[in-house]
Amino acid sequence: MRNIDEDTITQAVLESMDGCRNPRLLTVMTSLVQHLHAFAREVKLTEDEWFTAIRFLTDVGHITDDKRQEFVLLSDTLGLSMLVTTQNNKKPAACTEATVLGPFFVDGAPEYQNGDDVSNGAVGAPCFVQGQIRGVDGKPVANASIDVWQSDEDGFYDVQKTTEDVGDMVHSARGKLRSLADGRFHFRSILAEAYPIPHDGPVGKMLDALGRHPWRPAHLHFWIKAPGYDTLITHVFRDGDQYLDSDAVFGVRSNLVVEWVKHGPGIAPDGSVMTTPFYTLDYDFVLNQQEAAA
Amino acid sequence: MRNIDEDTITQAVLESMDGCRNPRLLTVMTSLVQHLHAFAREVKLTEDEWFTAIRFLTDVGHITDDKRQEFVLLSDTLGLSMLVTTQNNKKPAACTEATVLGPFFVDGAPEYQNGDDVSNGAVGAPCFVQGQIRGVDGKPVANASIDVWQSDEDGFYDVQKTTEDVGDMVHSARGKLRSLADGRFHFRSILAEAYPIPHDGPVGKMLDALGRHPWRPAHLHFWIKAPGYDTLITHVFRDGDQYLDSDAVFGVRSNLVVEWVKHGPGIAPDGSVMTTPFYTLDYDFVLNQQEAAA
Ligand SMILES: [Fe+2]
Ligand SMILES: [Fe+2]
Repeated sequence: MRNIDEDTITQAVLESMDGCRNPRLLTVMTSLVQHLHAFAREVKLTEDEWFTAIRFLTDVGHITDDKRQEFVLLSDTLGLSMLVTTQNNKKPAACTEATVLGPFFVDGAPEYQNGDDVSNGAVGAPCFVQGQIRGVDGKPVANASIDVWQSDEDGFYDVQKTTEDVGDMVHSARGKLRSLADGRFHFRSILAEAYPIPHDGPVGKMLDALGRHPWRPAHLHFWIKAPGYDTLITHVFRDGDQYLDSDAVFGVRSNLVVEWVKHGPGIAPDGSVMTTPFYTLDYDFVLNQQEAAA
Repeated sequence: MRNIDEDTITQAVLESMDGCRNPRLLTVMTSLVQHLHAFAREVKLTEDEWFTAIRFLTDVGHITDDKRQEFVLLSDTLGLSMLVTTQNNKKPAACTEATVLGPFFVDGAPEYQNGDDVSNGAVGAPCFVQGQIRGVDGKPVANASIDVWQSDEDGFYDVQKTTEDVGDMVHSARGKLRSLADGRFHFRSILAEAYPIPHDGPVGKMLDALGRHPWRPAHLHFWIKAPGYDTLITHVFRDGDQYLDSDAVFGVRSNLVVEWVKHGPGIAPDGSVMTTPFYTLDYDFVLNQQEAAA
């Protein structure tokens, strides 16, 4: 410990944690320190680069508040979020796959009934969404809790449009509903559109320096919970989107890509008469059954 | 890119950087992504742990301001700072070794003449410091710029005691002087004492969870610059300190450990009559000569 140099430092840090009484924390931190040091050695990180990293993380911290989570964006754009999502959501092939939560979920969204319009002022082409929640055994899942959220036609979520001046947030294109007795659900919203993740901060600068764009293919977020089933956090992606093969957060999984069907003016699935074009989306979700407690 | 899973995600992230036109950035980010993903796979990082990490980094960001740098503390306590310092400061064995800068350096400290008292109100036992700056060829280095800074007897640096209310910071136990024609320097200050790094924030919580203490052995910081020589950022550590073998930031190198000699009341090196005990510190610094430009 009095002869610290680039060869002895890693062992010195590991030994300093000898008194840790949380075995899992010790495992995680041991691996973190080893990989962090291996990275710094591998690239022979310079003092200027270290300082640039400190400033970058400081900027990430300072732009983060209760409405904007730049650390989540950083994790998302480096593929860490998707890695953590996939390795913790291994399921039988018949189940609907999970993808990243993203930074725009909001707890306590307004509750809606099946058939309601969740857009609540968000602007976009009308879209009628329906589907069924089933277990991997094929049985309908009744009364599942379904959170949905999406951006508007300009690519913004409601949280991004709220400022201190506006006061309490108006939830739009965001809601919570429940599946019916036959596992089915249906609601009206707006057409999902591709959008760039917030890129006016340090993560945006990083993407730019890496020659990467900030766009995500159009998608609709779902968070589905039902007793006895694994919770499913996922999105449905819009087929044909130009960013499906270059999602800025690496969230696309091929079986989550589906067609939003375009219709001319006419009768919508809920019976209303549409004077402008509208879209329909049909997508069923298959939940993994939880293993019974031993 | 449409079939992202835990096996394909790393390659997908690396391919996303194909358009990067900064080769060094590409090298650094490629290694960072590979090690970050390898860490998450190795420990099979859970979604809860990921979220804990996001919250931790958010807290680190929010406690950081222009007076407190919690990201530097984090880097220091994980040994990253010392690793970066050592691998960028390889020098002939005769040279004085470098150690971490730490978070308490302040640009623009007051200028002093040799013989001045730099304590400027900081409380502690009087200490008279002297030494010589030499090149590795043995020649004295005249007019070298010498920044010194240290904590007071309570373990606080001046920056830690400044609040918004106080207004402009009063620099104490901190100053800038220059070596004389014979390379020598001498000034009065106070005795260096062991201190805990700031541990009332997220890094303190981390140390606590790891069973680690936040203490650093007593030391005096130096930043020495002279044209034609490599800049030296280092400290001198006080021999006998109980934390020399468990420095919270892994900064100790054995040839930086020296005795602060204690004296009873009497005549100090600068000729003044001391009615209380005082200390003396003698330490010479050997700078590496820069290679001549080709
Ligand atoms: Fe989204
Ligand atoms: Fe210090």
